[in-house]
Amino acid sequence: MRTNPKSLLIGTLAIACFSVFPAWSAGLDMEKVERQVVQQHDASVQRLQEWIRLPSIAAEDIGFPEGPEHMASLLRDVGFEPVRLIETTGKPGVFGTLDAGAEHTLGVYFMYDVKQSVPSEWESPPLAANLLDKPGLGKIVMGRGAVNQKGPELAFLEAVRAIRDSGQSLPVNLVLVAEGEEEIGSPNFGEVVFDPEVQEALAGTLGVFMPSAAQGRDGTVTVNLGAKGVIEVQLIASGERWGRGPGKDVHSSLKAMIDSPTWRLVKALDTLVSEDGNTITIDDYPEPRPLTEAEEAMIAQAALRRDEDGLKELLSTPHWIDDLPFEQALARLMSQPTVNIEGLVAGYTGPGGKTVLPHRAEAKLDLRLVPPMKADAALAALEAHLARRGFDDIEVIMSGGYDPTSTALEARLIQAQLTVLEAAGIDPILMPRSAGSYPGYIFTGPPLNLPSAHFGLGHGSGAHAPNEYFVIESANPNVAGWDGAVLSYVAYMEALGQ
Amino acid sequence: MRTNPKSLLIGTLAIACFSVFPAWSAGLDMEKVERQVVQQHDASVQRLQEWIRLPSIAAEDIGFPEGPEHMASLLRDVGFEPVRLIETTGKPGVFGTLDAGAEHTLGVYFMYDVKQSVPSEWESPPLAANLLDKPGLGKIVMGRGAVNQKGPELAFLEAVRAIRDSGQSLPVNLVLVAEGEEEIGSPNFGEVVFDPEVQEALAGTLGVFMPSAAQGRDGTVTVNLGAKGVIEVQLIASGERWGRGPGKDVHSSLKAMIDSPTWRLVKALDTLVSEDGNTITIDDYPEPRPLTEAEEAMIAQAALRRDEDGLKELLSTPHWIDDLPFEQALARLMSQPTVNIEGLVAGYTGPGGKTVLPHRAEAKLDLRLVPPMKADAALAALEAHLARRGFDDIEVIMSGGYDPTSTALEARLIQAQLTVLEAAGIDPILMPRSAGSYPGYIFTGPPLNLPSAHFGLGHGSGAHAPNEYFVIESANPNVAGWDGAVLSYVAYMEALGQ
Repeated sequence: MRTNPKSLLIGTLAIACFSVFPAWSAGLDMEKVERQVVQQHDASVQRLQEWIRLPSIAAEDIGFPEGPEHMASLLRDVGFEPVRLIETTGKPGVFGTLDAGAEHTLGVYFMYDVKQSVPSEWESPPLAANLLDKPGLGKIVMGRGAVNQKGPELAFLEAVRAIRDSGQSLPVNLVLVAEGEEEIGSPNFGEVVFDPEVQEALAGTLGVFMPSAAQGRDGTVTVNLGAKGVIEVQLIASGERWGRGPGKDVHSSLKAMIDSPTWRLVKALDTLVSEDGNTITIDDYPEPRPLTEAEEAMIAQAALRRDEDGLKELLSTPHWIDDLPFEQALARLMSQPTVNIEGLVAGYTGPGGKTVLPHRAEAKLDLRLVPPMKADAALAALEAHLARRGFDDIEVIMSGGYDPTSTALEARLIQAQLTVLEAAGIDPILMPRSAGSYPGYIFTGPPLNLPSAHFGLGHGSGAHAPNEYFVIESANPNVAGWDGAVLSYVAYMEALGQ
Repeated sequence: MRTNPKSLLIGTLAIACFSVFPAWSAGLDMEKVERQVVQQHDASVQRLQEWIRLPSIAAEDIGFPEGPEHMASLLRDVGFEPVRLIETTGKPGVFGTLDAGAEHTLGVYFMYDVKQSVPSEWESPPLAANLLDKPGLGKIVMGRGAVNQKGPELAFLEAVRAIRDSGQSLPVNLVLVAEGEEEIGSPNFGEVVFDPEVQEALAGTLGVFMPSAAQGRDGTVTVNLGAKGVIEVQLIASGERWGRGPGKDVHSSLKAMIDSPTWRLVKALDTLVSEDGNTITIDDYPEPRPLTEAEEAMIAQAALRRDEDGLKELLSTPHWIDDLPFEQALARLMSQPTVNIEGLVAGYTGPGGKTVLPHRAEAKLDLRLVPPMKADAALAALEAHLARRGFDDIEVIMSGGYDPTSTALEARLIQAQLTVLEAAGIDPILMPRSAGSYPGYIFTGPPLNLPSAHFGLGHGSGAHAPNEYFVIESANPNVAGWDGAVLSYVAYMEALGQ
């Protein structure tokens, strides 16, 4: 920590976490910024609702080119100049810079795409972006992308706007890259980041951060020093590729004389994990490194501070794997790779039954990776395993993936977070990494070798699930609402600019 | 065979298989019937199209009560009196009688329901019932139910109509039972058949036959002396019932600390069959009896006469199980029970992936049974197996099922078929049973203990698959078209009435 600010109370108005601003905030007139944040509040929230109503979903090819064009216009609107779309093999990226004449430059990573949604599963339509009152939370915006990641991202852009519209200069210059394929594993994000102009701009930054809602429902903030990697793959057994079984769905009575590609998939899947489904049994699979003492200490602290019962209730999960105590369950979450089945689909999937022998069966898997595992090596091991076990006809389609990513506690991108949080009176929980994944490796790995992290106050939940939300007016004084989230980014830029 | 008719040529007009009628046809003036069949042809085909356009699908609760009401009106229209709907726990049955003052009474079994269909998979919409020209076949009607079973059933009713409208009496009285749940395994058909009035009426019949298109594409007729039984079951693993894993879909990264009901289902499925998916490994599962010498002889004959290459092409199947030669593959088809996966569904089933850990996974199975296996015993063995292997949380929902059924070659219901076929110059292939299933056991088992069989000329294909069709105007003189199919039922009733 570079300064020693006096400790601050969270504002009694939940709309603003930072009713008094830290002593080290010498560059900005924070009162002016706060007034501006409050003044633009309604328009800001409307901009978020409009954005949620314009989904871009790469898996379903929905919302292109409207999504990247809207992303670019959001950037231009707060002062990025120039802003340009970067075409890729897949969906376009968006690149923008904002030169404030500051000493330091901050890299920013955005995704403008969102996960699919099934409207019938939601309390309020996923693209309606309705403002609702949720008991215990306050006023929320509900919609696909609310927390993952449009809410936090737009709050960051509103911080940039508020500084400008209060007549002041940003404490840092900005270099922003956005992609539209995060939810399918960022298969083409390298084509954005390694565009010569983009790469050169990023190389000059302190590191690359992604806005996120880091507060739990109780206001707790978690700072993750990295993220797991992931590969998403589809395993497909078919009569066509196998050369056995039918090449189209046939009557199920024929099973007595015709092989079944669906049974073949089941038998192949069975070889990937132990009987309880929890230990990977892929031959010669990359191994994770053990947790360090420092990581174990972080996890022990986290287990004491996090609300295990609340988490179990939130996840509708009565027991962790092997009935582990919370600390060991968290250690497993941090340290272990996974092979998860996201979906199964074969033959008839409607209500009741239908007597067919399907010609095709598919499993959708995601495999999470921890250091020093690499996405390429995990995929290669999976393919070699299937081949060695005689399943080389099973098609393996990798739709995307990331290596794991780590950033040192000492990095300025992390230390500035701790400064801001301390100033706000928040004692964060440090974790070795997030169990989720994002393509931070593209910044932390060669050739850029930069720090990368997430940051932002505010709370939301339901990423990849129904009823995703982000808190707008918080009912809990320990949880930042929209204005508090915006101000947390003002403070973060201010701390990084020192 | 009770008569020794002179052998007949199939009519050179494909519209009528029986341009000259057998000598034993003493009761009916066949010329008059033939003229009437030709005269009512267009109206008959329109009635079939109308029926196809009114689907009843029990699995999706579509087409009730319109389906049974239409079935009843079709029966009344050709002279059944009285006709009544019989309410059941599920969908209604339909019961009708036609007293022609004849010596013998024929039982008839109809299903008025059809299988589901996915319109995007069809060349012509499944409910359009379009008349199309198919190379090599002639003019067909394409639609769901065309061959399974509305086409053959309506052809039978048109035979009844043609005899009446040619001013003659039916050679046999009729007792007809129809159900609307055949495609979900006839779970409530007992409530129809064992209605006291229905049971008494059926008990006085020669046996119960179901109209069917018994001709292959080349005109070959197969006479099956029974059918396999079946149970259809859904196996469902869920966090809710297991008490482990999530009670709702959660983010897939949590797999590192939360159990997966989907993996549990995969592991349970894996125990049901051998590595190649072809041998049942359910503990203490009922055993089939070996084929008799007579059955083996039938199969050997069938293997010589059936077109193996054509069948493989029709089924898009390059190899039978274990690369068996045709005769052994057919023996396997006749003699072996199966455990088939009709469908798998868990978590995300759309395009690409979605990073969820699903709370529920379902496999839809159908298990075919051969004598002396019983549906109840097969289900009990499956449930006991799962419990013994520790999978007693996996829900087993049996949506319906039948015991296998057998009818003796000597039964009048079979011998009359042979008489008609010989008269038509057709040498049928005899088979121990059909590999498919129908609820014949309800007639052949106690208390009725009647013969039961399928019969009918004509050709169609695509039951339970896209592009289901039934031939209306045949391009092949060896294959009966619509009028030939109608006349085959006239001849069958005539032979049975002797």
